[in-house]
Amino acid sequence: MIKHADRIYHGGDYNPDQWDEATIDKDMELFKKAGINFVVLPVFSWAKLEPQEGVYDFGWLDKLMDKFAEHDLKVCLATPTTAQPAWLSKNYPEVLPVDKQGRKRTHGMRVFFCVNSPKYRERARAMAEEMAKRYAHHPSLVVWHVANEYGTFCYCPTCEKKFRQWLKNRYGTINNLNEKWHTSFWGRTVYDFEEIMLPTELNDDYRFNPIVNLDYRRFMTDSTIECFENEAEVLRRYNPEITVQTNISGHIENLDQFKMVKHMDIAAWDNYPKPTDDKSFIAYKHDLMRGLKGGESFMMQEQSPNQQNWQPYSKLKRPGELRMLSYQAMAHGSDTCSYFQLRQSIAGQEMFHGAVISHNGREDTRTFREVSQIGKELQQIGDSFIGGRRPAKAGIIFDWDNWWAMEYASQNCMPNKNFNYLKKISKYHKVLFNQNIPLDMLSIEADFSGYRVIFAPYLYMIKGDIAERLKGFVEQGGTLVTTTLSGLVDEHNRAVFGEYPGPLKELLGIWVEETDALPPDEKNQICMEEGSGFTEKSYSCGFHCDVIHTREANVLGRYGMDFYQGTPVVTKNSYGKGQAYYLGTEPDEKFLAELARVICSEQELAAPYQTVGNVELTERVNEKYKTVFALNYDKEQEAEIDLKDETFTELITGKTLTGKAKIPAYDLLVLRKDI
Amino acid sequence: MIKHADRIYHGGDYNPDQWDEATIDKDMELFKKAGINFVVLPVFSWAKLEPQEGVYDFGWLDKLMDKFAEHDLKVCLATPTTAQPAWLSKNYPEVLPVDKQGRKRTHGMRVFFCVNSPKYRERARAMAEEMAKRYAHHPSLVVWHVANEYGTFCYCPTCEKKFRQWLKNRYGTINNLNEKWHTSFWGRTVYDFEEIMLPTELNDDYRFNPIVNLDYRRFMTDSTIECFENEAEVLRRYNPEITVQTNISGHIENLDQFKMVKHMDIAAWDNYPKPTDDKSFIAYKHDLMRGLKGGESFMMQEQSPNQQNWQPYSKLKRPGELRMLSYQAMAHGSDTCSYFQLRQSIAGQEMFHGAVISHNGREDTRTFREVSQIGKELQQIGDSFIGGRRPAKAGIIFDWDNWWAMEYASQNCMPNKNFNYLKKISKYHKVLFNQNIPLDMLSIEADFSGYRVIFAPYLYMIKGDIAERLKGFVEQGGTLVTTTLSGLVDEHNRAVFGEYPGPLKELLGIWVEETDALPPDEKNQICMEEGSGFTEKSYSCGFHCDVIHTREANVLGRYGMDFYQGTPVVTKNSYGKGQAYYLGTEPDEKFLAELARVICSEQELAAPYQTVGNVELTERVNEKYKTVFALNYDKEQEAEIDLKDETFTELITGKTLTGKAKIPAYDLLVLRKDI
Amino acid sequence: MIKHADRIYHGGDYNPDQWDEATIDKDMELFKKAGINFVVLPVFSWAKLEPQEGVYDFGWLDKLMDKFAEHDLKVCLATPTTAQPAWLSKNYPEVLPVDKQGRKRTHGMRVFFCVNSPKYRERARAMAEEMAKRYAHHPSLVVWHVANEYGTFCYCPTCEKKFRQWLKNRYGTINNLNEKWHTSFWGRTVYDFEEIMLPTELNDDYRFNPIVNLDYRRFMTDSTIECFENEAEVLRRYNPEITVQTNISGHIENLDQFKMVKHMDIAAWDNYPKPTDDKSFIAYKHDLMRGLKGGESFMMQEQSPNQQNWQPYSKLKRPGELRMLSYQAMAHGSDTCSYFQLRQSIAGQEMFHGAVISHNGREDTRTFREVSQIGKELQQIGDSFIGGRRPAKAGIIFDWDNWWAMEYASQNCMPNKNFNYLKKISKYHKVLFNQNIPLDMLSIEADFSGYRVIFAPYLYMIKGDIAERLKGFVEQGGTLVTTTLSGLVDEHNRAVFGEYPGPLKELLGIWVEETDALPPDEKNQICMEEGSGFTEKSYSCGFHCDVIHTREANVLGRYGMDFYQGTPVVTKNSYGKGQAYYLGTEPDEKFLAELARVICSEQELAAPYQTVGNVELTERVNEKYKTVFALNYDKEQEAEIDLKDETFTELITGKTLTGKAKIPAYDLLVLRKDI
Repeated sequence: MIKHADRIYHGGDYNPDQWDEATIDKDMELFKKAGINFVVLPVFSWAKLEPQEGVYDFGWLDKLMDKFAEHDLKVCLATPTTAQPAWLSKNYPEVLPVDKQGRKRTHGMRVFFCVNSPKYRERARAMAEEMAKRYAHHPSLVVWHVANEYGTFCYCPTCEKKFRQWLKNRYGTINNLNEKWHTSFWGRTVYDFEEIMLPTELNDDYRFNPIVNLDYRRFMTDSTIECFENEAEVLRRYNPEITVQTNISGHIENLDQFKMVKHMDIAAWDNYPKPTDDKSFIAYKHDLMRGLKGGESFMMQEQSPNQQNWQPYSKLKRPGELRMLSYQAMAHGSDTCSYFQLRQSIAGQEMFHGAVISHNGREDTRTFREVSQIGKELQQIGDSFIGGRRPAKAGIIFDWDNWWAMEYASQNCMPNKNFNYLKKISKYHKVLFNQNIPLDMLSIEADFSGYRVIFAPYLYMIKGDIAERLKGFVEQGGTLVTTTLSGLVDEHNRAVFGEYPGPLKELLGIWVEETDALPPDEKNQICMEEGSGFTEKSYSCGFHCDVIHTREANVLGRYGMDFYQGTPVVTKNSYGKGQAYYLGTEPDEKFLAELARVICSEQELAAPYQTVGNVELTERVNEKYKTVFALNYDKEQEAEIDLKDETFTELITGKTLTGKAKIPAYDLLVLRKDI
Repeated sequence: MIKHADRIYHGGDYNPDQWDEATIDKDMELFKKAGINFVVLPVFSWAKLEPQEGVYDFGWLDKLMDKFAEHDLKVCLATPTTAQPAWLSKNYPEVLPVDKQGRKRTHGMRVFFCVNSPKYRERARAMAEEMAKRYAHHPSLVVWHVANEYGTFCYCPTCEKKFRQWLKNRYGTINNLNEKWHTSFWGRTVYDFEEIMLPTELNDDYRFNPIVNLDYRRFMTDSTIECFENEAEVLRRYNPEITVQTNISGHIENLDQFKMVKHMDIAAWDNYPKPTDDKSFIAYKHDLMRGLKGGESFMMQEQSPNQQNWQPYSKLKRPGELRMLSYQAMAHGSDTCSYFQLRQSIAGQEMFHGAVISHNGREDTRTFREVSQIGKELQQIGDSFIGGRRPAKAGIIFDWDNWWAMEYASQNCMPNKNFNYLKKISKYHKVLFNQNIPLDMLSIEADFSGYRVIFAPYLYMIKGDIAERLKGFVEQGGTLVTTTLSGLVDEHNRAVFGEYPGPLKELLGIWVEETDALPPDEKNQICMEEGSGFTEKSYSCGFHCDVIHTREANVLGRYGMDFYQGTPVVTKNSYGKGQAYYLGTEPDEKFLAELARVICSEQELAAPYQTVGNVELTERVNEKYKTVFALNYDKEQEAEIDLKDETFTELITGKTLTGKAKIPAYDLLVLRKDI
Repeated sequence: MIKHADRIYHGGDYNPDQWDEATIDKDMELFKKAGINFVVLPVFSWAKLEPQEGVYDFGWLDKLMDKFAEHDLKVCLATPTTAQPAWLSKNYPEVLPVDKQGRKRTHGMRVFFCVNSPKYRERARAMAEEMAKRYAHHPSLVVWHVANEYGTFCYCPTCEKKFRQWLKNRYGTINNLNEKWHTSFWGRTVYDFEEIMLPTELNDDYRFNPIVNLDYRRFMTDSTIECFENEAEVLRRYNPEITVQTNISGHIENLDQFKMVKHMDIAAWDNYPKPTDDKSFIAYKHDLMRGLKGGESFMMQEQSPNQQNWQPYSKLKRPGELRMLSYQAMAHGSDTCSYFQLRQSIAGQEMFHGAVISHNGREDTRTFREVSQIGKELQQIGDSFIGGRRPAKAGIIFDWDNWWAMEYASQNCMPNKNFNYLKKISKYHKVLFNQNIPLDMLSIEADFSGYRVIFAPYLYMIKGDIAERLKGFVEQGGTLVTTTLSGLVDEHNRAVFGEYPGPLKELLGIWVEETDALPPDEKNQICMEEGSGFTEKSYSCGFHCDVIHTREANVLGRYGMDFYQGTPVVTKNSYGKGQAYYLGTEPDEKFLAELARVICSEQELAAPYQTVGNVELTERVNEKYKTVFALNYDKEQEAEIDLKDETFTELITGKTLTGKAKIPAYDLLVLRKDI
């Protein structure tokens, strides 16, 4: 969490280097009116701060920092290292990346450097040190932000050399690498680390060599962490009391965020939903962000106060939508409500991207008014739920290695070409979310001991001791749900030598002989056995259909069609004190909702309060308070929450509530009680 | 117009360097039978004319020129510089372009040279001079044609160097460039012109940096003009009485044609409609071509006498279709009816492209007969409408800077990703065209004084004094219509700092707070206020929906749906003696047709004659005659034109017509009277 | 055919270099249980066999060869030259290809070398010689397999130099090349072979220069043949009694297989149908493979025993499907039933590709049981139909030059952009196949004397003496069917100078004036004349519509629509003792089926036996036996074959059959009788 935070930070990206003093002074007034207490800068000012190598110009920033202090604005100070100056690219072309097509890039875009470039790191570290020297103890400073939205991959000679060294460190000998990479397939045996080439379009390995791709992503994650630490270490040295982080952009899949975020004091991310995204999908990402540091609160670093410019159809946010999105973020663990951007730029890529202050500079716009309402409410709410964690006994395993391995496999060797890990896992999240069951997104290394129900869908890669720990979890009474495509490969992406699902087959009491692939327009059915506890007799399913042989497991459902009609598709195995479910297919949402209901009921998991209507319900608990968030998404109908005999203060209205409380249409309650 | 022209030139591209003498002699006979009086050559003969550097072989062309003279064929003599010889590319690789992907190209295609290459220019100029020396006073010569279909962009080191110099000339200092390019966005500040990179795929600036792209297109336009002038200057020097031009291909968007054509004696273009193009869309392009030189007549340089080979489905032209297309071109301002090609090539890319003389060499083919009919008719028509201009009081503003800026913006920062400038503007043309209202396509620098109604849809970029001149136009009693997305940026593509639509807001009496983007399948409605004069109560609209605040303006229509339901969408503001309309959305065609009707009626603009049926009606007026073209597109029904008490000679039939005259099905009248 | 073969080889690709000895011993047992008698290896073991240049390690392979001998397994020994070792690419970068985009590739993929690289050839030949020295007389060896799935094109400097030399050899002088390439089009005249560039994306010639592309494919075919012969010559030298071949992959279009296979002792191919492929389409490819060596039997080198991994949706093969596919291959001329792969790899691109022995290693899987059934049956069948040829009097001409020329033309200059030669020709195959008419796929150079009916659809390019030979064929009483797009160009892709269809017009008694192109959703009709013998009055047609003028020919059908309504579309011309049909369009399948029926009936061609049901029927005849294959594809209904008074032994059941015999549902008969 953010160290020493005494309020929910409400603000966002600000680029005063684009404006004259009069405009900045006007902004100070407007910020006050909007309840803005937090600015992020100077993300893109490297060229301005260091006009030539080693020559710095911090005068304008010094003045701004003092102005912020004067106006009680807290600052998230960004090292501006996401966009190197043109002179750096010109004088040291090594800093420019080589792309997957083997092309040396030219200066231009942001996040457009080689994370392994020694020169880039040298200059970035020098810049970080300059900033730390000046501002590490500035009263406005609350967060250090390093660079921005890491994720660019590079394939330059520097990276090639470092990757070979990384492989040497990982595998020790070339023989061991040959074995782990199983290079005997397609004649890829190597005799020297120097013979290993990067996986690019030049050798098609980016498509056809899953293991080198997988290791390259692991290497790029490690390289990016080094690049982050290169600056973070300096910043921490000057003042260890300041939170250090960077933000996760939409390219979340490129880097293993569980590994990355270990090196940060807090996770931070940019929330840019598509107009068509379901609210559960946004909640799912928030929950994943909270999971990155094992349930600690996170920062919503960016969201657009109105329309984005990156969507094919950049719809306006509807009236009230920004407020719902803001509270949803906080309900799921954010301790900030931060926008990109505070004042709209007059040029460049994002000139029509939403901003708190539009080109027109007015304070009577819909957007400004909505932001101001949030600002006012957050002042009332104060420090209520800061650092609050969500109590949950259900969890869903999420893993970057699995993501990468499955999507590479899907492009090539898996039966079905359209595997989207993020979307596939979200289906399991959605059914729990819809029932307001508290849940956590779990790393594969998470401690499972506090949980009763764990979903591990598509657990393709079994690595470390995960198989043993899942067995232990079930043995001790937990309920596990896993699915088709699980237990197939080891950490080197080598298939199990033996029956599927490999190390999980004993726990599940089954083995899988083969897996059929269904095109999107083909479906099969799950016909439920008597006494399954499910309400319908059959459900639709598709995508993959495992042909399953049961051993100890009971059959809950069987296929309704095709040559494997009547064979098991859903099984349940008693193991120790617990239960292990296997779904040999991708069921429809109705089935998954029933399954969640049945399993949660067996394990006595439920929503913390009963609600009536389209209500999203979460709790956050810190040392002082329990805070309950109840968001009513219905734009026409009021909803209800039954607080029973508990008594809460509603923080926005200040009212005391107990028993059945109303939530107005498209409105929300923030209910607090002392612990 | 073409200097000294005494007839409508009827002919086209001819490649006698592909044929033996017997075939050429046969062609002379066939040309005579088809009424061909005009040949264009030798477009692709550089390698033949200059087999090695500085060594020329003009013998064969000398003989041809004399043969043409003998047969009274007029010649459009092309410098063959569109396709350099292989030896030039081989000995001086600098002439080959570097493409947007950063790849040095190899010799092969046509228009495949760097327009800035000094060596290319040297050799091209030498070739032009050789030709001028020999043929500048040849009796057959009537037009010089320079190269062919310019438009290839290059990103080579020569271009890089010249672009930096061009920027230096334009902006003076690097500080001024930083300000105008607003480089503080995304950290792009530069300290030296040498730090500026070309916008290619190598730095993603081709997608993400609208201003450098915009300036690169301006630079490429200027470079291409230099490249054209490099030859044109020599040609003019030898005989200033010969018209000099080049032709505009389908890649019309690449170069600012208003700028280009200023350097030519006449505009010339290649008319290759798709089989699915509406006749209004073809007329729109003709009108644009006529607009390039402020209403002067132009040359239709190429059209296919039958099917093309570039379409996905190259349908045959239907019987009579070629004739209708030919007269449509002349009706809109062409003084030529010229084909690609006179004789079909036996090999290469265009071997199955239509030609007057097919591979079979016969004169009884449908195509040959249709061409012959046109030839015969044109002999009867004689010099009737040469140089004739179209009298119009309605105009539509068209601007390449706006085209480029909006399409870049649409790829990135505009709310909606599917902006096609050419298509969007055409919708306004179409409704006037369908009502046979005489109209001109106007440059943003055009003199508006003769007009009563100006449409300036999507006037995104306000540059020069256009805002003042539009105000003046309305003040003096004109009617202006502009739309959503207007008045947003200056000539440097920087957004207005203040309310939209920036410099137009006073004239329009409104301001626009925000703009919603609708996907193609979503629509809103324009609900008309009482007394609007429109026939329907509501119309469909979509694409964008501005949320508008009126000041002085009256509201003509309001949104029928969404959260901005009931707010203004169509407004009308009295300003001086005139009216300024604003459309905050993209209305359907029905609305636009009504709007055109209402506005034209207010300004007393109308079709010059009343017609019954599917008739396209235009006038051309020169010093001697008024010529009226009436084309009946209905294949079954005859149509009618009411000439009232005017008396005309119909030039094809020679009949005298007055009062109500019939136009046979899928046929046309060319009516002339003395001035 | 395979020399000295005494059984149908049943087996497939095996990669024991991936496994330990225990696994290999287990495999020997499993092979025996599955009736596997044939292994293909070591396709990908170059790096293992030659760990450094000139240093060989054959010990492991020696041991394996002896083990195979011990278990009576026959071996198809592959030179492992499809995937060069990394050290070869590293030490001699010239072996790596340059791709069509001009990019030097890096080491990685298989078939990823320049076929013209001297160093590659040197090392490949040395490897072949090492293998020949050791194994040429090994008792297990039955076939040499060179490399694997040739087809990669290269555009490196070596290839450029060789291509220029190849052109010099072909055309002699640059003037002759200019004439044959008709370089006067678009100014491409060259004065030196050094001025000729390869057709790549760098000069767009890969799209826009049909003749250089065509010659490049011819050159690449010749280069690949040299590359094959480079090894084959050595192998043959050590033991001329061993069959030498390589296999044709899915990229069948890249190389002229008629030319390639001339250099092999037998054709071999990989049969990977899509789940949606019609059985006739698979049979068509088998027939084409048989045609490559003029009707000799071929090898089905690879098929998947279960699902593939390359399909977007890799469906499981249904129960029994593998068996039907296997017998279909043999019924059409295969003397092998060979799988990729015998044991499933645990890693890499194809780790989930079907295999006889799955990761689970079990012998009770569906796949293993189905393979074992085939193995057992083949043991019973013995050497029955080895080398058997199919007696046919109908043929379809297939030609790679035409394929290439038409697809290039279709991308550019043909009226319709969607020409797929393989698919278009297959429509003619399908209607004969469905009627069980014995048919051969014929090279353009084939001897037509034994045939009564020849289909030559889309005979675009007339080369060599094909026009004369077709005239002779018809003169002697044969029936020819040809179609739109025939007779248009010569071997240099130059259009005929004269009426279409050029050299065929006299034979057909027509000429074609023009050709309309119809988009996929537009159709026309063929209205049959009285007495045509067709059952329907009209049929649907589309794609292209020729406007035809008849001379001597009779009209069988006329267009039902469009401006050419009532003009001829199907004509028949008596020429000598035979008949020549012309189809000016692409008729629907119903028309083609009728046409096949009518023509075959005129020429007294018929299915060899009458059948009832969905039966595929073929014969193979060798020196000893006639073998009849009858496959019933109906999964529910039994079918019937009427053997009349002939008596056969059914080889799987051992029963004697005569008269009307039943074929159970989704089952088959293999009937043999002595000659």
